[in-house]
Amino acid sequence: MAVTGAKKKQIAILNGGGDAPALNAVIRGITVKAISLGYDVLGFRRGWAGLLGKGEPHPLDLDRVQDIHMLGGTILRTSRTNPYKVEGGVEQVKKNLKKFRCDYLIAIGGDDTLGVAWKLHQEGVKAVGVPKTIDNDVNATDYTFGFDTAVNIAADAIDNLHTTAKSHDRVLVVEVMGRHAGWLTLHAGMAGGAHIILVPEEKFDMKEIVKIIKNREKKGYHYTIIACSEGAVPKEGGMVLQTDEKDAFGNVRLGGIAQRLAKVIQKETGKETRHVVLGHLQRAGHPTAFDRVLGTRLGVHAAEMIHKKEFGKISCLKGTEIVSQDMKAALGQLKTVPKKRVEEARLFFGLEG
Amino acid sequence: MAVTGAKKKQIAILNGGGDAPALNAVIRGITVKAISLGYDVLGFRRGWAGLLGKGEPHPLDLDRVQDIHMLGGTILRTSRTNPYKVEGGVEQVKKNLKKFRCDYLIAIGGDDTLGVAWKLHQEGVKAVGVPKTIDNDVNATDYTFGFDTAVNIAADAIDNLHTTAKSHDRVLVVEVMGRHAGWLTLHAGMAGGAHIILVPEEKFDMKEIVKIIKNREKKGYHYTIIACSEGAVPKEGGMVLQTDEKDAFGNVRLGGIAQRLAKVIQKETGKETRHVVLGHLQRAGHPTAFDRVLGTRLGVHAAEMIHKKEFGKISCLKGTEIVSQDMKAALGQLKTVPKKRVEEARLFFGLEG
Amino acid sequence: MAVTGAKKKQIAILNGGGDAPALNAVIRGITVKAISLGYDVLGFRRGWAGLLGKGEPHPLDLDRVQDIHMLGGTILRTSRTNPYKVEGGVEQVKKNLKKFRCDYLIAIGGDDTLGVAWKLHQEGVKAVGVPKTIDNDVNATDYTFGFDTAVNIAADAIDNLHTTAKSHDRVLVVEVMGRHAGWLTLHAGMAGGAHIILVPEEKFDMKEIVKIIKNREKKGYHYTIIACSEGAVPKEGGMVLQTDEKDAFGNVRLGGIAQRLAKVIQKETGKETRHVVLGHLQRAGHPTAFDRVLGTRLGVHAAEMIHKKEFGKISCLKGTEIVSQDMKAALGQLKTVPKKRVEEARLFFGLEG
Amino acid sequence: MAVTGAKKKQIAILNGGGDAPALNAVIRGITVKAISLGYDVLGFRRGWAGLLGKGEPHPLDLDRVQDIHMLGGTILRTSRTNPYKVEGGVEQVKKNLKKFRCDYLIAIGGDDTLGVAWKLHQEGVKAVGVPKTIDNDVNATDYTFGFDTAVNIAADAIDNLHTTAKSHDRVLVVEVMGRHAGWLTLHAGMAGGAHIILVPEEKFDMKEIVKIIKNREKKGYHYTIIACSEGAVPKEGGMVLQTDEKDAFGNVRLGGIAQRLAKVIQKETGKETRHVVLGHLQRAGHPTAFDRVLGTRLGVHAAEMIHKKEFGKISCLKGTEIVSQDMKAALGQLKTVPKKRVEEARLFFGLEG
Repeated sequence: MAVTGAKKKQIAILNGGGDAPALNAVIRGITVKAISLGYDVLGFRRGWAGLLGKGEPHPLDLDRVQDIHMLGGTILRTSRTNPYKVEGGVEQVKKNLKKFRCDYLIAIGGDDTLGVAWKLHQEGVKAVGVPKTIDNDVNATDYTFGFDTAVNIAADAIDNLHTTAKSHDRVLVVEVMGRHAGWLTLHAGMAGGAHIILVPEEKFDMKEIVKIIKNREKKGYHYTIIACSEGAVPKEGGMVLQTDEKDAFGNVRLGGIAQRLAKVIQKETGKETRHVVLGHLQRAGHPTAFDRVLGTRLGVHAAEMIHKKEFGKISCLKGTEIVSQDMKAALGQLKTVPKKRVEEARLFFGLEG
Repeated sequence: MAVTGAKKKQIAILNGGGDAPALNAVIRGITVKAISLGYDVLGFRRGWAGLLGKGEPHPLDLDRVQDIHMLGGTILRTSRTNPYKVEGGVEQVKKNLKKFRCDYLIAIGGDDTLGVAWKLHQEGVKAVGVPKTIDNDVNATDYTFGFDTAVNIAADAIDNLHTTAKSHDRVLVVEVMGRHAGWLTLHAGMAGGAHIILVPEEKFDMKEIVKIIKNREKKGYHYTIIACSEGAVPKEGGMVLQTDEKDAFGNVRLGGIAQRLAKVIQKETGKETRHVVLGHLQRAGHPTAFDRVLGTRLGVHAAEMIHKKEFGKISCLKGTEIVSQDMKAALGQLKTVPKKRVEEARLFFGLEG
Repeated sequence: MAVTGAKKKQIAILNGGGDAPALNAVIRGITVKAISLGYDVLGFRRGWAGLLGKGEPHPLDLDRVQDIHMLGGTILRTSRTNPYKVEGGVEQVKKNLKKFRCDYLIAIGGDDTLGVAWKLHQEGVKAVGVPKTIDNDVNATDYTFGFDTAVNIAADAIDNLHTTAKSHDRVLVVEVMGRHAGWLTLHAGMAGGAHIILVPEEKFDMKEIVKIIKNREKKGYHYTIIACSEGAVPKEGGMVLQTDEKDAFGNVRLGGIAQRLAKVIQKETGKETRHVVLGHLQRAGHPTAFDRVLGTRLGVHAAEMIHKKEFGKISCLKGTEIVSQDMKAALGQLKTVPKKRVEEARLFFGLEG
Repeated sequence: MAVTGAKKKQIAILNGGGDAPALNAVIRGITVKAISLGYDVLGFRRGWAGLLGKGEPHPLDLDRVQDIHMLGGTILRTSRTNPYKVEGGVEQVKKNLKKFRCDYLIAIGGDDTLGVAWKLHQEGVKAVGVPKTIDNDVNATDYTFGFDTAVNIAADAIDNLHTTAKSHDRVLVVEVMGRHAGWLTLHAGMAGGAHIILVPEEKFDMKEIVKIIKNREKKGYHYTIIACSEGAVPKEGGMVLQTDEKDAFGNVRLGGIAQRLAKVIQKETGKETRHVVLGHLQRAGHPTAFDRVLGTRLGVHAAEMIHKKEFGKISCLKGTEIVSQDMKAALGQLKTVPKKRVEEARLFFGLEG
């Protein structure tokens, strides 16, 4: 137990924001490597919230991290708490880091979590980071951990839905995560054999969608599967998507894009159209081998970064190598799907009909 | 090809209503057995619709049914068309059966499809049936094919959601198929480790739900997973579930039970609560081994029933045997979850907290 | 903790023999039900070995059994130790049951484990049992837990091997568990689409196998998949299977049946033939929903049996109900695959070629 | 149909050597892109064998490649035929390319297949290639398609075997593909949580293995899982691995490394030790999303390479981009696991014990 009386240097770990498959692999990678390098490791629960108040330490040793890389979620639990938005929050964080004798900090998280780490780093905390977003929209790294798992879950769903769509001569609209970047939808749609893929990066044209469905119909393909990012938006001037639903509290209820799209498609094509929202299932379950290996390696590298005093940096994948990148460079820069990749996917739109 | 000029006796097959995993296993079982007994087999597309108008025959032979038992959906496609609700429909069905030289008919379907088969049987069509409902709510058979697959899909989802619920200290409400019978929710909830299971057979008590969640919280289990049948309803006098949402066309929007339940739970417990609707995913994908074997055996038996002239009967599972039951007995009788099974499941409610 | 000072009546649980998926579901079912009925529950590690020597108790409460029904293996670990074959073993077992204040005993296991329980019961120990064998060869119950999971694993393997067999124009022989009964091979072979299924119950004819493969070849199916029980044996007078290999220690090495069969097939058909031995993979991994529900219910019933003083009985499945059967009736009686089921499967042999 | 009378330029496709998951994705990617660029596409069956004799053309159009990227294996079937080892083979290949009016050739395969393509290219055939090896041992590309699927299959097996190893206090040795390179074993072992990973790149030390197992035992971990490449070899001077078994024909039977290793471990540690050979299962089944997307993109790029006249090149992955590399550079150069990656994996050896 590293909480008190430790003579070794100690590294604090926490993760913030949404959970992502392979978070535990990162935590294990850090822990095992750090211990092999002579450090103690102390986790904090529920992101920055675990460094507020009395603090919520969760000691990490070889026993504690055994086999956790094979589990989804995070043994440290998580939250969206931002100490810069809590009165006196930053001071509490610093105080707790001292109180628990943490010499270094590794923060695993997205823009928000790493933004806090970056500010703390500038204020003297020796911190490194590991970028985390299931959306894969971080410029500094080829792939974020968790993305591959989410792609496989969504691709399997899209793949599996083929038989029911075919049996019922239906159009199915599958809503995939991705408010600002379409990576998940693009990869899951390509892998799962969607006939139309809609991403936030390119406004979609209702007329084109209707045309593809009707064209498939003519060629004897009486079903169509559409993979649609939750952040996909229609072009103006096209067929209007209903947006005036209200929720139980009287607020305008935008509804999911898939649900609204399904309504318009059914109206315009006369074909029975249904929607499926994958939602939380995309974060659920066991990480793929790709994510377990990637998460493990990112974690090992993060511990090495502490050892090499590469503070203010993040652990990233480039090609097949794990490298250190500037933390700053990862903040506020969305990696969106380039036009070239959208065009490549478009080759397969409805084409087989 | 059996469509024209066949001298062998010929069996017509069709399936109606929603698709269910292992439908193709039934079709293959019938076809292979029937051919071995010296019959020709002729499928009709899209349920009874395939026997209306000009008819939509789809010849079935050993090549055509190769390996199809491993696929979801139905190669015959399906519809909800009821010839008794179409003007002149019954006459067209009979005419087409003659036109395509079908001596016998095997109908695979639920109450509606088998109801038509029963009437036709009474009017002289030599028909047998195979009950089909993913909901498993048919009295005449121990299990309907497709149920086991749907249970596994829903159970895997509930199981997988544990890690994300735990990581975020959340309540998750998972909506499972079942408007009138809770079999799917009961089995998936038990298998997937849900902490609360709500079925249509027993009105639920919001206060009890809130109590279980709060009790788990106290004992250090900061998350709860609820498996909820789409047909589950609250007891009167409990906390009101919002039902006054309206859809885009101004109609009252009942919304899914999971979504409404999640809102009330969040309000009453103060805990972040989310919902997931499994929807079409529950019919999607490859049938389990159980369903493939069951479907195959039900199909083989159905062909034998024709051979033994057991018309007006259906092919059913009793224990480990496939047996013939009266078709009439399967109609209009809902097999619901008995109180004993609900009590058994209740043992595990929130208990581990 | 129930080990000492407990005033409640206490139930001992142990499992012996090979592990089977859903063993943990049984343990959890017993524990939760027994606690709800007012008992304490004390597990013993490694089967009867845990009741020898000083004893290896493993206390079971609601916390300990949380979510374990979703895991493979057994939290109690297991062994093949038989106290009747250990000098003074039976006395130690009885002594330890007293020492740890166990009023009742629930033994989960196969012929060997339940045989011990039966003898102990006759000597005054208040014992009930739950039959356990992945081979499903127990007469007293429709299905044993773990069987469905093993079938699915083997069926998935057989199913998945189709694409590689087709791509290479190969014959693949898949060896499935089952020394004396062919249930696993029969169900996995039917579900996985094997073109030939060989079970111990019926001696196979090499000439027939070669004929089926050659017939498929003629009809344009250049591949064949054979599901073969490890206990399958050839008819005498057929083509001889090599059996004179020796192992590293000079003993005659029988080799696996699949390996030997593959050699003969390759020689006789001229077709490239390979074998796969599923082995330990068939016990590995997460239990299916069917097994989780079955295991849970068998466990709940076993606890009820204690409460109702149905000693000397076992918890079994009949149709959809869990019932008590005589323990004696389950011993030494192998449930083999009846001829009728073999004939049913044979319908699909190579037939689609 | 492009076989005769086509006025468009035509591209021939074939694949040689072992099948790999996502081969069909490559074929589909090529076909769809080539057609969109105005080419006809003609597949040839069974690798180079399909261009010998009369030739075995298999026309490819949008209908034929529909959804095939989701299937394992290859619709073109495959063989290990090398026309340079067949008398007059090269001339037949060239003649058939002319006869079937193929202007271009895309060969998908390993060293052997691409070696032929390279020679043909030097003799004037306008050829490009896509490297294929499930072993991932090609220098020119970051990952070969099919590797990710094989890693996931092996990792799942290793992961799943944990519960049975734990339940029985056993050592399990899992043999993974890889005669010359350990990529598959390394990634699957890391992902699946193996406690020891043995690759061909580094001779293993029996004493170290025994030490790790005994150390785990002491710390209360009574089980150990070893992932072992089929090409792993022991250091000289260590404990001897039995190699004198003979097969049925009297030849020395080396046996698999896993089987031999298991024997020595059992002897040296006294612990029950078993082995599992994954074998053909590693090529079986549906490709992962990663491989489907990679295969599709590699195929699309290969068609573009033809269009851009990049003959004598191969389609490869670098980072997140698909690029053209010299075909020559891909031949005869084995990409082995670097020491750094072995060291990284070694961090996790038995460590958690």
